[in-house]
Amino acid sequence: MELQLLDQLHSRRRFFPARQDMIYEGQIERSAYILASGWVCSYKLLPGGTRQVVDFQIPGDFLGLRSVLFRKADHNIEPITRVQASEVQVCDLLEAVNTAPRLGAALLWAASRDEAMVVEHLVGIGRRDAKQRMAHLLLELGARLKLVGLASNDGYTCPLTQYLLADALGLSAVHVNRVLRELREDGLVTFQQSKVTFGDFDGMVAFSKFDRHYLDHDGPLMTWPGGGPSSIQMLTGLPGP
Amino acid sequence: MELQLLDQLHSRRRFFPARQDMIYEGQIERSAYILASGWVCSYKLLPGGTRQVVDFQIPGDFLGLRSVLFRKADHNIEPITRVQASEVQVCDLLEAVNTAPRLGAALLWAASRDEAMVVEHLVGIGRRDAKQRMAHLLLELGARLKLVGLASNDGYTCPLTQYLLADALGLSAVHVNRVLRELREDGLVTFQQSKVTFGDFDGMVAFSKFDRHYLDHDGPLMTWPGGGPSSIQMLTGLPGP
Repeated sequence: MELQLLDQLHSRRRFFPARQDMIYEGQIERSAYILASGWVCSYKLLPGGTRQVVDFQIPGDFLGLRSVLFRKADHNIEPITRVQASEVQVCDLLEAVNTAPRLGAALLWAASRDEAMVVEHLVGIGRRDAKQRMAHLLLELGARLKLVGLASNDGYTCPLTQYLLADALGLSAVHVNRVLRELREDGLVTFQQSKVTFGDFDGMVAFSKFDRHYLDHDGPLMTWPGGGPSSIQMLTGLPGP
Repeated sequence: MELQLLDQLHSRRRFFPARQDMIYEGQIERSAYILASGWVCSYKLLPGGTRQVVDFQIPGDFLGLRSVLFRKADHNIEPITRVQASEVQVCDLLEAVNTAPRLGAALLWAASRDEAMVVEHLVGIGRRDAKQRMAHLLLELGARLKLVGLASNDGYTCPLTQYLLADALGLSAVHVNRVLRELREDGLVTFQQSKVTFGDFDGMVAFSKFDRHYLDHDGPLMTWPGGGPSSIQMLTGLPGP
């Protein structure tokens, strides 16, 4: 039954061009999306025009889940590349949760995982130096992409610009450039021509003290009677690693 | 029915002394708490011993909601004062969600609101200067305390030390002291002897560009047939403002 419901949630597929907000702060019409392909960033604009990127979203991720029960969207969501996404209307989502309560628990897990990533970014900006912060983010993206079959321990394709990295890490673009050069010279990682290549994966993990537990990759601790797909696969509609 | 279930969730009241973790990172036994009285902080410890305070929790807040569906707690929760809290075991919570799906939606809303606050702290550390950051936090705490009847526009009682503020705002304790002095000299706010007193509330809001919408104080957008208490009151068991 959950699968049928999720099929319905995935039925409204849409394409969005790069660099045009899918959701904007203050928006009242409440939709969320499940990302099928492409990359997206969520960000807040400050009065004065500076921007803080809160997180990047990759295929399989929910977009706008946080705002879906709010009166207004509290952040912006912008495609970094051309993206394909399933639109989920809040009434359909609530109805699905009413019919299949375990879906509610899976959504709560997804929201918790989103928050755990924002917490890591807060810890990074508050307490890690620029180089560790960058290494940590590149490892996090790799771990998340691996889960949906888009990365290996060697590396992954990454459309992020140095400006986006700067706005996510609280650095200047010049600083991002310098930090990436240092990581390359250390033999840890190379980020060139939209490709992240790990030179020394274990060295990266040790250097940035990356502990992937906060990603809780095995999904919510719930029993799904009769086996069936993992809740991650159920939520995302993706084949998994 | 939801009320009965929530009464059950609130049945296991416990007291905890100050400065002794209620939940610690890596913990496997999964409980959450609903805070009835006192203040708590959630934090991450970095290898090397530095600490980042992620958020403060006040009466009515959930503690450990984020980790409740994870395999391990991903953060620490420490009482700042002596606290009273209701212990909620994960199996009871999941059972309640199964019986009353709208409770699941209310929990998702609570998790979303938690995340919205962490996002604001990320934006603060990433893009606000120290003085605005402090003003923003003092206003956020005031708005949250007001919702549960513990603050007015004049101010509130606040047990936070300068060390806790420093670990939350990514500043040194000396810097916190200077920023508080500047805010006092500007006539905006005084924080002395565990008491926050707003000298110029509107001036504080304008200076820190505080927009309380992210707190979404009216609760999740859901219809509760037959009226009844708001979902915030339902979740927290507190009388409301």
